[in-house]
Amino acid sequence: MSEPFAGRQAAARLALERAGIDALLLSVGADLPYFTGYEAMPLERLTMLVVPRDGDATLVVPELEAPRVPANGSCEVHSWAEGGDPIGVVAGLVGAAAGVAIGDHTWTRFTLALQAAMPHARFVPASRITGTLRAVKDSAEIAALRAAAHAVDAVAAEMRTRPFGGRTERDVSREFVDRMLAHGHDRPNFAIVGSGPNGASPHHDAGDRVIGEGDVVVCDFGGTMRGYCSDITRMFVVGAPTSEVADTYAALTVAQEAAVLAATVGTPCEAVDAVARRSLQERGLADAFIHRTGHGIGLEAHEDPYIAAGNATPLVAGHAFSIEPGVYFPGRFGMRLEDIVVATAAGPERLNEAPRDLAVVD
Amino acid sequence: MSEPFAGRQAAARLALERAGIDALLLSVGADLPYFTGYEAMPLERLTMLVVPRDGDATLVVPELEAPRVPANGSCEVHSWAEGGDPIGVVAGLVGAAAGVAIGDHTWTRFTLALQAAMPHARFVPASRITGTLRAVKDSAEIAALRAAAHAVDAVAAEMRTRPFGGRTERDVSREFVDRMLAHGHDRPNFAIVGSGPNGASPHHDAGDRVIGEGDVVVCDFGGTMRGYCSDITRMFVVGAPTSEVADTYAALTVAQEAAVLAATVGTPCEAVDAVARRSLQERGLADAFIHRTGHGIGLEAHEDPYIAAGNATPLVAGHAFSIEPGVYFPGRFGMRLEDIVVATAAGPERLNEAPRDLAVVD
Repeated sequence: MSEPFAGRQAAARLALERAGIDALLLSVGADLPYFTGYEAMPLERLTMLVVPRDGDATLVVPELEAPRVPANGSCEVHSWAEGGDPIGVVAGLVGAAAGVAIGDHTWTRFTLALQAAMPHARFVPASRITGTLRAVKDSAEIAALRAAAHAVDAVAAEMRTRPFGGRTERDVSREFVDRMLAHGHDRPNFAIVGSGPNGASPHHDAGDRVIGEGDVVVCDFGGTMRGYCSDITRMFVVGAPTSEVADTYAALTVAQEAAVLAATVGTPCEAVDAVARRSLQERGLADAFIHRTGHGIGLEAHEDPYIAAGNATPLVAGHAFSIEPGVYFPGRFGMRLEDIVVATAAGPERLNEAPRDLAVVD
Repeated sequence: MSEPFAGRQAAARLALERAGIDALLLSVGADLPYFTGYEAMPLERLTMLVVPRDGDATLVVPELEAPRVPANGSCEVHSWAEGGDPIGVVAGLVGAAAGVAIGDHTWTRFTLALQAAMPHARFVPASRITGTLRAVKDSAEIAALRAAAHAVDAVAAEMRTRPFGGRTERDVSREFVDRMLAHGHDRPNFAIVGSGPNGASPHHDAGDRVIGEGDVVVCDFGGTMRGYCSDITRMFVVGAPTSEVADTYAALTVAQEAAVLAATVGTPCEAVDAVARRSLQERGLADAFIHRTGHGIGLEAHEDPYIAAGNATPLVAGHAFSIEPGVYFPGRFGMRLEDIVVATAAGPERLNEAPRDLAVVD
């Protein structure tokens, strides 16, 4: 079996052993490519990898999709024909299991059918097994994240020279998407352009609003490049910023920098979140910061570890995550600053290098 | 409440009543926009609509996403703050239910948490309630499907004048995507370009293969336009086709036409599938037809009704579905021909109008 899949499957078996779980069942989502290099189509025809604790992994796949499975030896392939019973095949491979870990994003219709076919098994989310494994990136994964980060860095830098005023958010968003593709991304995942009052909605859908003079514009964009995700937020303003905008952004920049510096190996995730929160609180901005400080990133745009209150997990070398405090003023504007950071033995390392100052554009 | 959501929710309540189910729980996927006009982000933060059989619908949504919910009065909005307990909120809204129908595509991690929070409730897939409702399109939905179909018709027609030889599949696929966007699609869903032997894999990922003289090329593409999906397959050949290719395509065209004509109101879906299969069997091509004849289409690219063996559901006026027989010869080539068809009282109506003959290209 080609690396890195053999090592990853071995680690998963050890985790199953420790958790007292008999098998891992993986369908749509990032766990399956992590262990096999194959991504399931989100279809009504079931694709599912069965990893027994004490046996070889088998991929149950529709006959129609079987030619797409890479021949890397990471698993046996069991294809099922139209009209077949993939639920029965999976249940047969699992056997008389007491505990089953099933992929977090698996479609519920399949989980309900599997529960009916295995009425005595206890089902738990697979992230209990896979989350901690996937959160720690190896050097090839960090290189892939860095390459994706540098691609969006280039996009962010280019956009500083482009006009925003007079264009719709949708038009600017489309330009972010086009430039991500031009810089090597395989697919865009999102390109939020929140101008003026729309910026106060952190996940605003870019719409028909025409960006005007004086508007503060939140641009948060990312995609997937060679399997790994990018995610960056940079701030733009059309024409000279008011002193309120400049001061608020200065406070946000300080809070983001402080949280990045706090992200050292051994520090609990919630402590990093608290640093950003406390920094904004000192400037009277605590109430405007309505979300967590960050999320892990890798094969998925959001994954473990979450940099949030309540997550006592200590950072370990190889954890990759966003640091993205933001402040939101309903009816007026919003601001966010985001970089991807990797925890290393030598300290936190930012993967993004695009300029972080407020970009003044036409 | 704005139409059509009030009528759809009333129909769902009636279906819940008949099925003896107490509540409908909808998250990611097309059921939620069908009933509210709002599409949930596929995120680790839970969004879920609770439709009790005898009460008002409530959308449980992350505070971060709440500004994106359209103010159309289709439901109450209950936003939850970072660190909150959305599972507890949903369980509280459902109350002491004996039966719960949960959206088919809901992430399993949420379903497992809800099962733990409601240990006495029986969970069934929501499609048992929503599938038959959504399958029957009203006139506005058919108009939206027709508009999307005409957009991909225009793309298919344009591509007949474009060169294929000497280009990679990926390059041609990207052109299909660009043209779908140019013709008004909001997002591309797929653009399969399977050339030569790659065409024998029905869901081939467009790759680095360079298309050559004599290649038969399967082009199956579609996307989403104003919420509704397109899906069309047309066949291209580089230079004059061999007589085997021409004869095989003629047989496929006859089979597709026969299945379209068979798709009359009252005919069981499986009978339509059988017509395509029998037609190909008469030409000795039955073994090469390895998938069902079609799938429903609407808010989702694949939904009820499935035109497949084992589905005895009779077609009703307003059913919209693909008719797409195909034949596949491993190591050599594949062919498929697909139109979207609506069952009407006046007979089957094709929404796609692009030329169906084998397009000879450079």
